[in-house]
Amino acid sequence: MTRRMVVIGGDAAGMSAASAARRLDADLEIVAFERGPRTSYAACGIPYVVSGDIDDVDRLVARTPEQFRTRFSIEVHTHHEVRGIDTAAGAIEVHDLEGGGSRIVGFDELVIATGARPIRPPMPGIDLPFVQGVQTLDDAALLTALATGADRPRVVVVGGGYIGIEMAEAFVRRGLATTVVDAAPTVMRTMDADMAELVEQALRDHGVEVRTGADVVGFEPGRVVLGDGHLDADLVILGIGVQPNAELAADAGISTGHRGAVSVDDHQRTSADHVWAAGDCAESHHRVLGRPVHVALGTVANRQGRVAGVNVGGGDARFPGVVGTAITRVVDTEIARTGLSESEATEAGFEISVGRIDSTTRAGYFPGATPMTVKVVADRGSGRVLGGQIVGGPGAGKRVDVLATAITAELTLDDMVNLDLAYAPPFSSVWDPVVVAARAALRG
Amino acid sequence: MTRRMVVIGGDAAGMSAASAARRLDADLEIVAFERGPRTSYAACGIPYVVSGDIDDVDRLVARTPEQFRTRFSIEVHTHHEVRGIDTAAGAIEVHDLEGGGSRIVGFDELVIATGARPIRPPMPGIDLPFVQGVQTLDDAALLTALATGADRPRVVVVGGGYIGIEMAEAFVRRGLATTVVDAAPTVMRTMDADMAELVEQALRDHGVEVRTGADVVGFEPGRVVLGDGHLDADLVILGIGVQPNAELAADAGISTGHRGAVSVDDHQRTSADHVWAAGDCAESHHRVLGRPVHVALGTVANRQGRVAGVNVGGGDARFPGVVGTAITRVVDTEIARTGLSESEATEAGFEISVGRIDSTTRAGYFPGATPMTVKVVADRGSGRVLGGQIVGGPGAGKRVDVLATAITAELTLDDMVNLDLAYAPPFSSVWDPVVVAARAALRG
Repeated sequence: MTRRMVVIGGDAAGMSAASAARRLDADLEIVAFERGPRTSYAACGIPYVVSGDIDDVDRLVARTPEQFRTRFSIEVHTHHEVRGIDTAAGAIEVHDLEGGGSRIVGFDELVIATGARPIRPPMPGIDLPFVQGVQTLDDAALLTALATGADRPRVVVVGGGYIGIEMAEAFVRRGLATTVVDAAPTVMRTMDADMAELVEQALRDHGVEVRTGADVVGFEPGRVVLGDGHLDADLVILGIGVQPNAELAADAGISTGHRGAVSVDDHQRTSADHVWAAGDCAESHHRVLGRPVHVALGTVANRQGRVAGVNVGGGDARFPGVVGTAITRVVDTEIARTGLSESEATEAGFEISVGRIDSTTRAGYFPGATPMTVKVVADRGSGRVLGGQIVGGPGAGKRVDVLATAITAELTLDDMVNLDLAYAPPFSSVWDPVVVAARAALRG
Repeated sequence: MTRRMVVIGGDAAGMSAASAARRLDADLEIVAFERGPRTSYAACGIPYVVSGDIDDVDRLVARTPEQFRTRFSIEVHTHHEVRGIDTAAGAIEVHDLEGGGSRIVGFDELVIATGARPIRPPMPGIDLPFVQGVQTLDDAALLTALATGADRPRVVVVGGGYIGIEMAEAFVRRGLATTVVDAAPTVMRTMDADMAELVEQALRDHGVEVRTGADVVGFEPGRVVLGDGHLDADLVILGIGVQPNAELAADAGISTGHRGAVSVDDHQRTSADHVWAAGDCAESHHRVLGRPVHVALGTVANRQGRVAGVNVGGGDARFPGVVGTAITRVVDTEIARTGLSESEATEAGFEISVGRIDSTTRAGYFPGATPMTVKVVADRGSGRVLGGQIVGGPGAGKRVDVLATAITAELTLDDMVNLDLAYAPPFSSVWDPVVVAARAALRG
């Protein structure tokens, strides 16, 4: 009898799982249910649609339902919402959002890939129409229309994390008055304050107003209410993080963990037999902290989805976890981090040494050389590299991958100092800035 | 009694050694002898002076003799050539090239940092004045004058390695008719033929004529003589590699090895007590091959020099070796390699698996995304990563550092596939090209 794989969620994790399973098992029946109108879109591209870098929102769609059907024999039902999972019976209840009516669909293997949603804290006015999350391509289209329309809205972005600063860049580049509000003393709390200050400076240099240490307590038409005043706003963007869409799994008795995300093992198995989870709804193992965390990133979603799909398809794949790498930019300032920040490492109980240096993206004498600051955090006793942060001009950000690789390989500062990294004047100073930071940490 | 450190050679390795020793030992007498007029210049910047990227040759000078004297109490004698070493007596014979006359200078510790020189094969016409090597800042000034002068010389570059293609780029960007001639079937023989072809294509796209499989047998006024014809040329650039300036050491009975370079241990000790060597004149340990090689690169010179200096200064530093990382560009095409190429690995006795993929430097839908080809070579049995090569648009080249780090850490393809590398649409596709290449090697 044909086995049936059911996938809940038609985005990165779900469709990666479906595709990976198909590659290994040509006979598997694969059915995916997606609440929205689209499959497999690059949500991380949304800010760049709003900014105008990408001129058509449809360019973010990697594959359409038709492509999945014809190329991979994967049946995708859009506008279908799964409302219940019966793990014992091996069945889900799915509701047709357009045609109406519900039906029960049996599964042999189930992949939960329900994603995450922007956090909307329960405060007065949060449901006013001018308070927007950034999640779907419909959001992208709406925000682009607002950014380019005649009304020239004053924009307040609540939260100075990745999505917050990317959206702030988008609106300010469209010429709109844009303010980022963050309750913390600095933006980008995944970085240490000394590095986050460089990010704030970049935002200000490009015309974004930054208000840190400012508590948002509610929204009223035309304004954001702060603990000690208010900000005029015609459009509010929520950038205070996401929460996993894990209620469906939790209601089915499946275990959840960090921030409510679905608990999974390194094969993406949940606590229920034949039920897998992947992507923004699921936990990830943090390889430095040695415990589960919730990381909602496209890379992780794709990788976890693939692992779940390989395992469903009869293979044996493992997701060993994340080290917490992330990158973004503010116009021409690149911002990247990996592993543990100084404060995270201290909080996790490490005794640390830290190196922080200023260098340049190219040889100092080479045209186009721009400032680049690198910070390396290491375990004081063993010298093991725990984390790194980079803020700098074009070419600076992706160098964080050297640190991500070093952390994964459990290299020490001594190992780092002796890395044979690529040098030519258009690409680096002769002592690579990452190596110089490691050497500073060795002394520090 | 004050100990005296004598350094032969005032460039990267020698002055790194002098500076490192000074940091550890304030009382050490440090004397350096340099044959030429300058200290510590970035020879790797010379092509970019000729191209016009860098407008003043003096920008390549990191520190002048005066700066060494006043800031570090390091006495540098330029225009002084060391002509003999007496290891038993602990003395050198030095000749004053300007003032004339020789003298004997005793040392407690000696660092040999005599560099390398362009290979000039003994063929007819090699000493004709229009046949130029690229080594000193005087060469840079002369070549820049020729590149920008009214005579518009036809340029033939002999050898399509790093210096050859960098010089070809420089001349062609100055609008001169430029040909690269290489005896091998492709240029860039440190890369595999399939990757070198991409380099050739980039050269051709920018107007450089490429003649491979062409034997240069001599030079006549106005032309380069080939085995089967000739090429008109008003200026010939030798780019067929360098040979270590190791005769001085060899004449003193100091051991030499690969390609005649001075043999050193991991502390940069030579075979003679209290005599150290560093930089382009010395060998390096290759961490993948497990044997000494001769690598003439600025990064290695700086690192070896520092290690020698720390050890002379009373510290304990070690140079664990190189993995063979190098990077260059042809205008906007970046070219990088690390570890062993497919052919080097096979030659070294490895049974290999290879992955080669085409991807893009940014998310495919993001403006400015350019093609990027990555090749990964691994040991078939263990999966250990042995090497990697990258050719691609802006942002492609420095990603080779991930592979260099992985090789140093002895990561396997499985480890590579699970690396948590930085992703955002302006920086990468969601599956990093390096990871995709590793996955291809896993299948290959």
